[in-house]
Amino acid sequence: MNKSCALIVGVGDRQGVGGATSVLLARKGLHVFMVGRTAGKLDPLIEEITSEGGSADALTADCTESDQMAEVFAHISESGMDLRFALYNTGRNIPSAFLKSDQDHLDAHFKRGAYGGMLLGQGALRQMLSQPANTSHRGSIFYTGASASLRGKPMFAGFSAAKAGLRAMAQSMAREFGPQGVHISHVLIDGIVNGAIVQQLGLGLGKFMLNRKGVDGGLVPDEIAKAFWMLHQQPANAWTHELDLRPFKESF
Amino acid sequence: MNKSCALIVGVGDRQGVGGATSVLLARKGLHVFMVGRTAGKLDPLIEEITSEGGSADALTADCTESDQMAEVFAHISESGMDLRFALYNTGRNIPSAFLKSDQDHLDAHFKRGAYGGMLLGQGALRQMLSQPANTSHRGSIFYTGASASLRGKPMFAGFSAAKAGLRAMAQSMAREFGPQGVHISHVLIDGIVNGAIVQQLGLGLGKFMLNRKGVDGGLVPDEIAKAFWMLHQQPANAWTHELDLRPFKESF
Amino acid sequence: MNKSCALIVGVGDRQGVGGATSVLLARKGLHVFMVGRTAGKLDPLIEEITSEGGSADALTADCTESDQMAEVFAHISESGMDLRFALYNTGRNIPSAFLKSDQDHLDAHFKRGAYGGMLLGQGALRQMLSQPANTSHRGSIFYTGASASLRGKPMFAGFSAAKAGLRAMAQSMAREFGPQGVHISHVLIDGIVNGAIVQQLGLGLGKFMLNRKGVDGGLVPDEIAKAFWMLHQQPANAWTHELDLRPFKESF
Amino acid sequence: MNKSCALIVGVGDRQGVGGATSVLLARKGLHVFMVGRTAGKLDPLIEEITSEGGSADALTADCTESDQMAEVFAHISESGMDLRFALYNTGRNIPSAFLKSDQDHLDAHFKRGAYGGMLLGQGALRQMLSQPANTSHRGSIFYTGASASLRGKPMFAGFSAAKAGLRAMAQSMAREFGPQGVHISHVLIDGIVNGAIVQQLGLGLGKFMLNRKGVDGGLVPDEIAKAFWMLHQQPANAWTHELDLRPFKESF
Repeated sequence: MNKSCALIVGVGDRQGVGGATSVLLARKGLHVFMVGRTAGKLDPLIEEITSEGGSADALTADCTESDQMAEVFAHISESGMDLRFALYNTGRNIPSAFLKSDQDHLDAHFKRGAYGGMLLGQGALRQMLSQPANTSHRGSIFYTGASASLRGKPMFAGFSAAKAGLRAMAQSMAREFGPQGVHISHVLIDGIVNGAIVQQLGLGLGKFMLNRKGVDGGLVPDEIAKAFWMLHQQPANAWTHELDLRPFKESF
Repeated sequence: MNKSCALIVGVGDRQGVGGATSVLLARKGLHVFMVGRTAGKLDPLIEEITSEGGSADALTADCTESDQMAEVFAHISESGMDLRFALYNTGRNIPSAFLKSDQDHLDAHFKRGAYGGMLLGQGALRQMLSQPANTSHRGSIFYTGASASLRGKPMFAGFSAAKAGLRAMAQSMAREFGPQGVHISHVLIDGIVNGAIVQQLGLGLGKFMLNRKGVDGGLVPDEIAKAFWMLHQQPANAWTHELDLRPFKESF
Repeated sequence: MNKSCALIVGVGDRQGVGGATSVLLARKGLHVFMVGRTAGKLDPLIEEITSEGGSADALTADCTESDQMAEVFAHISESGMDLRFALYNTGRNIPSAFLKSDQDHLDAHFKRGAYGGMLLGQGALRQMLSQPANTSHRGSIFYTGASASLRGKPMFAGFSAAKAGLRAMAQSMAREFGPQGVHISHVLIDGIVNGAIVQQLGLGLGKFMLNRKGVDGGLVPDEIAKAFWMLHQQPANAWTHELDLRPFKESF
Repeated sequence: MNKSCALIVGVGDRQGVGGATSVLLARKGLHVFMVGRTAGKLDPLIEEITSEGGSADALTADCTESDQMAEVFAHISESGMDLRFALYNTGRNIPSAFLKSDQDHLDAHFKRGAYGGMLLGQGALRQMLSQPANTSHRGSIFYTGASASLRGKPMFAGFSAAKAGLRAMAQSMAREFGPQGVHISHVLIDGIVNGAIVQQLGLGLGKFMLNRKGVDGGLVPDEIAKAFWMLHQQPANAWTHELDLRPFKESF
């Protein structure tokens, strides 16, 4: 039996969802291919993972460029490992008044939000469907979604459109490839993620937002990672195709 | 600190969702109060649980009768244990042509589907909100839901109405009591449960249905139980309020 | 060809949705059977309708009592007219904290919200399906719904459960009887109706609420009536099964 | 008071939704600017409209090119007329297996489906918000949507993603600009449109599909046009933000 590996697209540092999921999967015994945009940025993550006895590779690629993602998948294929887990964890929200949103704004959201999700999905599916499987479950492809995918809101036209598009694509994929053994889920993150991005906001804004929310008011990346792992552990007779993750005081 | 206990309403035998969840929770160290309609029917479950070193009580009650449920909660309160988990797992579907559905049909569905869910919810909330809590999470109240709650279909008017009502009620409760530390989730079961009910269908119908679905074509109660336990383990910063559980070949 | 008639359940006075719809339908040439709970209360409406050259009958019945509704339908059947339009327009919202809601609270909401909708639906379907039809469209059955049917909210558990149940039932009916030529729609009223109920609220509360909303901030019953008429006019190749009606400044 | 005009993007010939809506609006007294991709193709429509006493202009533009749409809006602005109605009626479905869908496939769907909708929306909003208004209703912007916007399906990943994105965008716009008096609606077309596109399918496929559906089995463009006009006539106290249009035998 081949060693299993995972692919995480959208990894920044340890304090983000991608980083936390990479660390958790490595602890579970999978080799982790982490894709980020900046060479070197993932070195501390690799160090942490290897210091714990795990193994990981950092690949530098823009997840919205088909040739760069093709290289990523070639790399995985050449590794000889079986791809069992793929996570598309990118597509941040840049709020913008509708009348001030230009083509670049919409394009950027849609490319990161939906098009990159297609590239990840196609590559992962091709790999997973070609691998042997001992069970009804060949592999898992998960998408980090947002509650904006369910409701468009002012200032969020581009983000909502992209995330709603990603959700519809994930549903299409789940209905087409679920019966072939690929578990495809869309995870609705609804709330502030208490991770790298919010902590680095200027002027102490992130700290202010989180303090205002109080204890457990922000989603902890390690807990989101556990949700992805739980989904991956589900046997094929009881798959979840969509779930929400939300701090207990978050209104919805 | 008091010992923790759980309440499971709608327990039949070991091969059902209620029974499987009772066994799992007992293994996790909670005392389990199981509520069924028939005295004696739960004896084998108690035997299994105690033989594994767990503890459980069987209470006979109709979960749609307020005075009987009041007795159940009085019993829990007198036990001195802290109620941390409550599951409402009842409300079976009796298909019926719309023009042949009478008041009793609709009443029966609504009582088991939604009204009993209110009684369980009120009793559990009163108990949980009066108990000490060391974390943001005082306790969990979960509902077994159905995909019929999302879409009405021919032959299912009564069932859909009741299940949609239950879902709306669970949402109302989640929005009112989530910020007070009670984790309320609605779990959409979508598919045939490979449990006692289907196995006992006459004429081998259940076996036929499951065989036609193939391996992993029916939901396994022990796996549904794991999903409830997973939800209960979520910290208050990352709660799931709704998820679906569905066999991989089930169309949706 | 027989004269056409309509049945409106939930008629109060001229300033309500039921009254406004009755007047509009009479103007369009249908005889209108209006059902209210209080004998005599509908006399001014009958006067207005007949003074305009229309015709209408007031029937006193509790729309949640099957024998009383059976009498209503017997009356329609004996009239010899063809029932082409039926509207179920009842089910008001009595907000209540979840822990203070008792069985009567839930029962009352569910009976008015969903069970009465079943009685109206069954009676109207039996009548319509027995009548001759020259087109694919035998008749219309419409339900006044609420946005609470889509989302449960604090204080609204009973109302939301009932309205979500009604919506699911309307969907079941539409899927079963649409192909037989009965147009079944669920109309989501989202906002304050600027009608009798709000105008009669004590302490000037209704006036205050409407003033705060400004011009066009409350739904006008005559406009809601037009929406029902528009739905009834749709040919069978382009039916609407659900639409929302909402003042332009209402948040949603 | 200025003369009112309408803008219809996605006009083919008389037997399509865009053409039918153009003819109807001209009959209602609006000057109609029709946008299509092929010069000359709209001449018969202009002839029909003018022969009935109406007035219309045909503009040749690619609705997914911002500079071409800027020219369209400059033209409208220079006309001195008030833009009261804008319809985005494009974005056809090209089914494709997910693993065979390339970047161009997704881009093409998203550009026509969502990005063009943004260009239409921005241009129309800028125009409408600058115009005088005597009522709470400054103008209407409508989108032709699809049921695929609600559910992703196999073969429809690109189409679903684009249409879900368009729906989310329309919602964002409605929530931002509704309170400023612009009525924004998303109209879900669910079924075969008995129009030019299906009638021109090769091998008699379109005829076969429609015949199989029977009388009223295909949506008639003139009826869809009426639905848009009905929406435009709604006063600001009772706006519909989403409705479906579906033949009576269509399963849903």
